[in-house]
Amino acid sequence: MAPTLPTAPQTFQVYDVTLRDGSQQEGMQLSVNDKLRIAAYLDEFGVGFIEGGWPGSNPKDSEFFRRATSGELELRNAELVAFGMTRRVGGRAADDPLIAALRDSGARVATLVAKSHVGHVANALHTTLEENLAMLRDSVSHLRSEGMRVIIDAEHFFDGYRLDGAYALEVVRTAAEAGAEAVVLCDTNGGMLPSWMGEVVSAAVELGAPIGIHCHNDSGCAVANTLAAVEAGAMHVQGCVNGYGERTGNADIISVVANLELKYGWKVLPEGNLAEATRTAQAIAEITNVPAGPRRAYIGTSAFAHKAGLHASAIKVDPNLYQHVDPALVGNDMRMLVSDMAGRANIQIKGEQLGFDLSDRTLAAELTDRVKEKELQGYTFDAADASFELLMRAQLGQLPDVFTIKHWTTTSFADGENDADIVSEAVVKLVAQRQVQYFVGEGNGPVNALDMALRRALTPVYPAVDGYELTDYRVRILDGSSGTEASVRVLIDTTNGERTWTTVGVGTNVIEASWEALCDAYRYGLIHLLENTVEPVGARGAASPVDALA
Amino acid sequence: MAPTLPTAPQTFQVYDVTLRDGSQQEGMQLSVNDKLRIAAYLDEFGVGFIEGGWPGSNPKDSEFFRRATSGELELRNAELVAFGMTRRVGGRAADDPLIAALRDSGARVATLVAKSHVGHVANALHTTLEENLAMLRDSVSHLRSEGMRVIIDAEHFFDGYRLDGAYALEVVRTAAEAGAEAVVLCDTNGGMLPSWMGEVVSAAVELGAPIGIHCHNDSGCAVANTLAAVEAGAMHVQGCVNGYGERTGNADIISVVANLELKYGWKVLPEGNLAEATRTAQAIAEITNVPAGPRRAYIGTSAFAHKAGLHASAIKVDPNLYQHVDPALVGNDMRMLVSDMAGRANIQIKGEQLGFDLSDRTLAAELTDRVKEKELQGYTFDAADASFELLMRAQLGQLPDVFTIKHWTTTSFADGENDADIVSEAVVKLVAQRQVQYFVGEGNGPVNALDMALRRALTPVYPAVDGYELTDYRVRILDGSSGTEASVRVLIDTTNGERTWTTVGVGTNVIEASWEALCDAYRYGLIHLLENTVEPVGARGAASPVDALA
Repeated sequence: MAPTLPTAPQTFQVYDVTLRDGSQQEGMQLSVNDKLRIAAYLDEFGVGFIEGGWPGSNPKDSEFFRRATSGELELRNAELVAFGMTRRVGGRAADDPLIAALRDSGARVATLVAKSHVGHVANALHTTLEENLAMLRDSVSHLRSEGMRVIIDAEHFFDGYRLDGAYALEVVRTAAEAGAEAVVLCDTNGGMLPSWMGEVVSAAVELGAPIGIHCHNDSGCAVANTLAAVEAGAMHVQGCVNGYGERTGNADIISVVANLELKYGWKVLPEGNLAEATRTAQAIAEITNVPAGPRRAYIGTSAFAHKAGLHASAIKVDPNLYQHVDPALVGNDMRMLVSDMAGRANIQIKGEQLGFDLSDRTLAAELTDRVKEKELQGYTFDAADASFELLMRAQLGQLPDVFTIKHWTTTSFADGENDADIVSEAVVKLVAQRQVQYFVGEGNGPVNALDMALRRALTPVYPAVDGYELTDYRVRILDGSSGTEASVRVLIDTTNGERTWTTVGVGTNVIEASWEALCDAYRYGLIHLLENTVEPVGARGAASPVDALA
Repeated sequence: MAPTLPTAPQTFQVYDVTLRDGSQQEGMQLSVNDKLRIAAYLDEFGVGFIEGGWPGSNPKDSEFFRRATSGELELRNAELVAFGMTRRVGGRAADDPLIAALRDSGARVATLVAKSHVGHVANALHTTLEENLAMLRDSVSHLRSEGMRVIIDAEHFFDGYRLDGAYALEVVRTAAEAGAEAVVLCDTNGGMLPSWMGEVVSAAVELGAPIGIHCHNDSGCAVANTLAAVEAGAMHVQGCVNGYGERTGNADIISVVANLELKYGWKVLPEGNLAEATRTAQAIAEITNVPAGPRRAYIGTSAFAHKAGLHASAIKVDPNLYQHVDPALVGNDMRMLVSDMAGRANIQIKGEQLGFDLSDRTLAAELTDRVKEKELQGYTFDAADASFELLMRAQLGQLPDVFTIKHWTTTSFADGENDADIVSEAVVKLVAQRQVQYFVGEGNGPVNALDMALRRALTPVYPAVDGYELTDYRVRILDGSSGTEASVRVLIDTTNGERTWTTVGVGTNVIEASWEALCDAYRYGLIHLLENTVEPVGARGAASPVDALA
């Protein structure tokens, strides 16, 4: 018995609000450049509409529309949308400066927020119910007569419907009759539950108006509320990448789209584009500097990761046992995690994935013990594959000596509290390929200075390290969980432009932990570089022996 | 028109799986002490069941049960539950060592995972459908005869029901007849949607068996799926605090409970306990060292925070416009955020909340400009109330000179890469109350060393700083968004034992940014200390003048 699947409507609109509603999230600050880059990713992913901001309300959004519509943003799939509100009480849409800003934005679609809650018409707009409808009718008609497509966001619709359903529906009817191509019911305070959606949305759909849905996650149900509205007949969904947004965030547009495509079997993106979901969400997270979150449905780094020993043995039998969809469909990967909860099965699978023979049960058991011992100290190999490989190589006696550190020091200083001339410098002395290297480095912090000194000391011997880049650096203070003093865990991501690897360091001193992760980052990169030059191992792009050893 | 509310069942079970399923999350490692502390919080919050782990499967879980049941954990609300599986194929429950471990765990309730999917019985257990039922019947009966209460987790139930519904239901019936007090339908791979729940759960409920629900968030619908099952008659809900768990996590038990209490109007916790939700979730996040996430429904730090200028003006009219429930009901707070998207209205409300008169529109506008200018440089005052107050005081000419830095330096060094004797030291020279102070400090990193030196230099003048503690330190690399070089933002949380405040620093050097946030942290604390000694401002506990100025 398959679950009952709703039928796809003839037209369906995927409408992204990351650049407006999403950017209202606490801690998120998007520059105009950021917004242009995000818009390009959204378009490439295949959403139908990109709400760019509110032209005329602040200089940044005005500049965004100016630049986006003058050649800096070429959209292939999406329409750029300018957001605004209905005209002022008692005025004329044709004379309203904010309406003019929409008209002059260069966007071909305008979305207007309108009141549909009788209380808000009285207490926030201070006007009559009739004038509110007139404002809506006038604003939509005016923009339509100017050649724009218009969408209406009916704010606080669900609370409004509860208080005075007839008036809320009158707002929907008025908007549709005036020419709005979608009337979007907004759960502005996010308080709805899925089982409450159907009745309200159906009532609006029955008017014959094209209905959209805009949900927030305050009850933890934004995605489910959106789906419930779609099942009741909504043909337009709004949301943000990574569920960004004010308070608890907006509906996660990628979860919504993935559920529609993979669970209902609808096509709401251009063919093949869903497989870009993970890349899109992660790239946008890089730009916003607000992580997607490892547990985010479909696109999180943990979304298809398996740790428990019980699961790992089962996955050896059937990889689909613990995944609801094939991760490749959303561009994600199944990952086996190494951890102290894992049995030998995980470690063996993981070792084989990395190309090492761990079929010897004693060897695998010894390595498992060593992993458990290190994890007890605070190491986490779940997240640090490169450090796991170095540990495994050490255990198997396959760890080449690429360099040995003799000495290091780092100093930061300034004269005066707010002096701009703050300097961080470091000195590293090491031996590589029997040559002593002794260098100073300067950086924007002690770890960066150590990285610069280490890099300068390694480059004469291994010129390729100049192409390595540290792309992320994360610090966590570990609780003194076993009665010992608190220690610090550092994770470092490094890339050589082709692949990225993660290393971990632990110590009671953050510089010590950072230094361990840093040295292992170079060590891992160099081992793979050197092995490739001797015996290329397939897909990894090998530098020539001359480049590698110079 | 109010939404239709389901009726509460006569008995309802709230069952927490944080300590077992939750701890399988990537990156989470709980010590026995951690588990004991979390269990105490869960009990205080009022859940009915705490699944502690799997005794006999690993030494840590066995030790947890030993310590929990020998006086280290006193439970007032909850039953401690030992998790395990049905007896081995072809054996007898009475002779099974894992069943014995449950019996001997000291817990009064056992939860057994059982297969309900015909494919898994064949391919994972390699046995017959009849033997699977016999294993279930034998295991439940045996533990019941030993005086234990028994709950069954029917693994992969929804996929199993789809493949062979009759067998899946036979498993439910068998478990109930053998004496299980709840048969929990598990959406093990998290692939369900809310609208698919009703039919399956209803079919199980119609058997007359007490039904529970266990959801994962792989479709982004774990909370909604749980509610859909409850609406279909489930009387037992499982989930984890903060939605912890493998892959995308389990259903967030606090969102589920808050929705049941606040949206359905049911009582599923002891009276008054829901107001402990935020404190409980945040305290457990401290122990797990995996943050709850600021946008987490109900308990996130951003869950009731408001930033947009439009909202802020509306909130001046009615604070309930943009909150779906009163935040006090879950122990959370409404917060106004200061940000470059905010208009003067936010800044004025914020200033008034802090006790400053910003009714002068010119003054408020100047301060707003200053905030926008600083935020353009990378400061974020959303998260750093104390730095906002210092900025406002500077603008209003109300910033007392508590100390002036003359000079600082910090050095970290080691001989050899893995040497344990790594030292971070710092020197700070400052003037406070016309006295020059010149001190060295040692720490587990350069910022900690600077903190120690600064603290030593301030203590002779202001003995109270010895009671200040830095509780959190967060670093973010800011994109060079306006074409300038990348900069770093540091946020520091400081507590004096009574209240906690947050300061922000920005610079191209991480030490520079940390130093700014650090100095401001002491500055803010000292200003409030000194003001309290002169003119106590109410609720804040004031130290005596002697303590303060020594």
